[in-house]
Amino acid sequence: MHLLIIGAAGMIGQKLVGRLARDPRIGGRHIERMTLQDVVEPTAPKDASFKVLTRAGDISVPGEAAALMADAPELIFHLAAVVSGEAETDFEKGYRINLDGTRLLLEAIRAHGHKPKVVFTSSIAVFGAPFPPAMPDEFHLTPLTSYGTQKAIGELLLADYTRRGFLEGVGIRLPSIVVRPGRPNKAASGFFSNIIREPLAGMEAVLPVPDTVLHTHASPRAAVGFLLHAAELPQEKIGPRVGITMPGVCCTVAEQIAALKRVAGDKAVARIRRAEDPLVAKIVAGWPSRFDAKRAVALGFRAEKDFEEIIRIHIEDELGGKIAA
Amino acid sequence: MHLLIIGAAGMIGQKLVGRLARDPRIGGRHIERMTLQDVVEPTAPKDASFKVLTRAGDISVPGEAAALMADAPELIFHLAAVVSGEAETDFEKGYRINLDGTRLLLEAIRAHGHKPKVVFTSSIAVFGAPFPPAMPDEFHLTPLTSYGTQKAIGELLLADYTRRGFLEGVGIRLPSIVVRPGRPNKAASGFFSNIIREPLAGMEAVLPVPDTVLHTHASPRAAVGFLLHAAELPQEKIGPRVGITMPGVCCTVAEQIAALKRVAGDKAVARIRRAEDPLVAKIVAGWPSRFDAKRAVALGFRAEKDFEEIIRIHIEDELGGKIAA
Repeated sequence: MHLLIIGAAGMIGQKLVGRLARDPRIGGRHIERMTLQDVVEPTAPKDASFKVLTRAGDISVPGEAAALMADAPELIFHLAAVVSGEAETDFEKGYRINLDGTRLLLEAIRAHGHKPKVVFTSSIAVFGAPFPPAMPDEFHLTPLTSYGTQKAIGELLLADYTRRGFLEGVGIRLPSIVVRPGRPNKAASGFFSNIIREPLAGMEAVLPVPDTVLHTHASPRAAVGFLLHAAELPQEKIGPRVGITMPGVCCTVAEQIAALKRVAGDKAVARIRRAEDPLVAKIVAGWPSRFDAKRAVALGFRAEKDFEEIIRIHIEDELGGKIAA
Repeated sequence: MHLLIIGAAGMIGQKLVGRLARDPRIGGRHIERMTLQDVVEPTAPKDASFKVLTRAGDISVPGEAAALMADAPELIFHLAAVVSGEAETDFEKGYRINLDGTRLLLEAIRAHGHKPKVVFTSSIAVFGAPFPPAMPDEFHLTPLTSYGTQKAIGELLLADYTRRGFLEGVGIRLPSIVVRPGRPNKAASGFFSNIIREPLAGMEAVLPVPDTVLHTHASPRAAVGFLLHAAELPQEKIGPRVGITMPGVCCTVAEQIAALKRVAGDKAVARIRRAEDPLVAKIVAGWPSRFDAKRAVALGFRAEKDFEEIIRIHIEDELGGKIAA
């Protein structure tokens, strides 16, 4: 099978590539060739058993998507996106990459005519407050950000191109992915990762919201699992509603901290400094907190069972099993 | 006030222009100037008390929308669209007019920077089966046609451009508008009008579905009322969810026919010939039948109270009060 990953240099893209390098099968089929594309040239995995082609390019530039179709990839992961914060500060760039880029990709697929499977990463940002206490699968998409709007439009296009028989699409709405590896960043949601990752590494982290904040999380490993499961699902099981809210662990920040204490003790918890930031608190209040992801669960998508498992996965996958004393 | 109507040559556009020629006020403000645009040059109303400019043009052609912004219309009705059937048979034309055209219009408004009110006609085609027995305002948009997809994307864009402060948008989801004047056409929904209009004119009409089919209707007069009410609504009353399902009269075809009998007698009803068309029946089965349009009603949108009133409006507005013996 020939696989194309667009946005392969991002955090989830890299994790997906790593996972496939270790186990090069999807749905029982062997991967023979993989094309990794991103705006910066992605790194090819070492010791992969399949051929890897890397390519730097901008999918919003006409011709790029058509070039990616030249060798007819049978499975396409479309992970490329300008993130939430940047799509909000740079209106034009967000629409160019997230809307035009996605549409150019779908059009290139339609023009090529080979009907690939397309797995698209959407986001719970397609939802916007006010929310019911637990959002059902039938809740309407009411994004309150340009990023969420662009993702919702991507889902609608994917559904129509699927219905018309140009491709087989599935859009997976990811919850907040924690614990993100790397350094703290300025994303409003960054603290959900920071308050776990930094204390485990012996460093201080700032908590900018009250610890009553309720949110839904899944690990990077679970996110890769969602992508692979989506790729393996027969299209007839998905049906016309191709956008699917993924499951996750719903808990308060207090419960996150309690899990950290169980895993790493009081010393780790003491590294969390509380400093409320009203702006962050306001942004977070507009996000959905709890989902009733019945459809995803019925389709076999699986997240962690609790937040402690999310922390243990971070320690295994990022810290080689070791935490700071 | 300067008003722009895009798609002014269509049935609803013409009715809106006629209504404003008779009573040139919106929200207590006088209309001083009106620009009527469509792909064919619209007809200017006779004896209007305001200045009328007519213009033929294609909003999907770059530059057309910018030209329409040159004199900064404060209120824009965006009614232009490739209809459902054509958007399904001509994939590219549907996306070009309904998506690119709408986006070019929104971009021209953003570039001009004058923040007009924009009333966009959406459709209940943004919904797709399966449905709950009565669809709530919070039901998700799951279109099963390219037309419905394009209208849903239009709503999402309108909401984001409103939220960003580029314009003040409201999208009204029209139910089936009956009784459509003119000759029977090939639209799958045409029979809902045909079985009333033709018998009232002394002619035969074909009913291609079982008379148990349940559907929601409003008159052309009500549609114009929705547009004007939407234009008058203060934006803060609409909030971030700018797409609003309009109210209507929900009834079965049997109830439509019973209303025809009350208004025009057995002779009119005898002109309806039953000839089931499985293809039409299948298309109609995918359409939503009943809405719980609570939000629209709370915001003051009003449809007819029953189907008999819809028939009487047709007789008043189209037949000069006279029906065939």
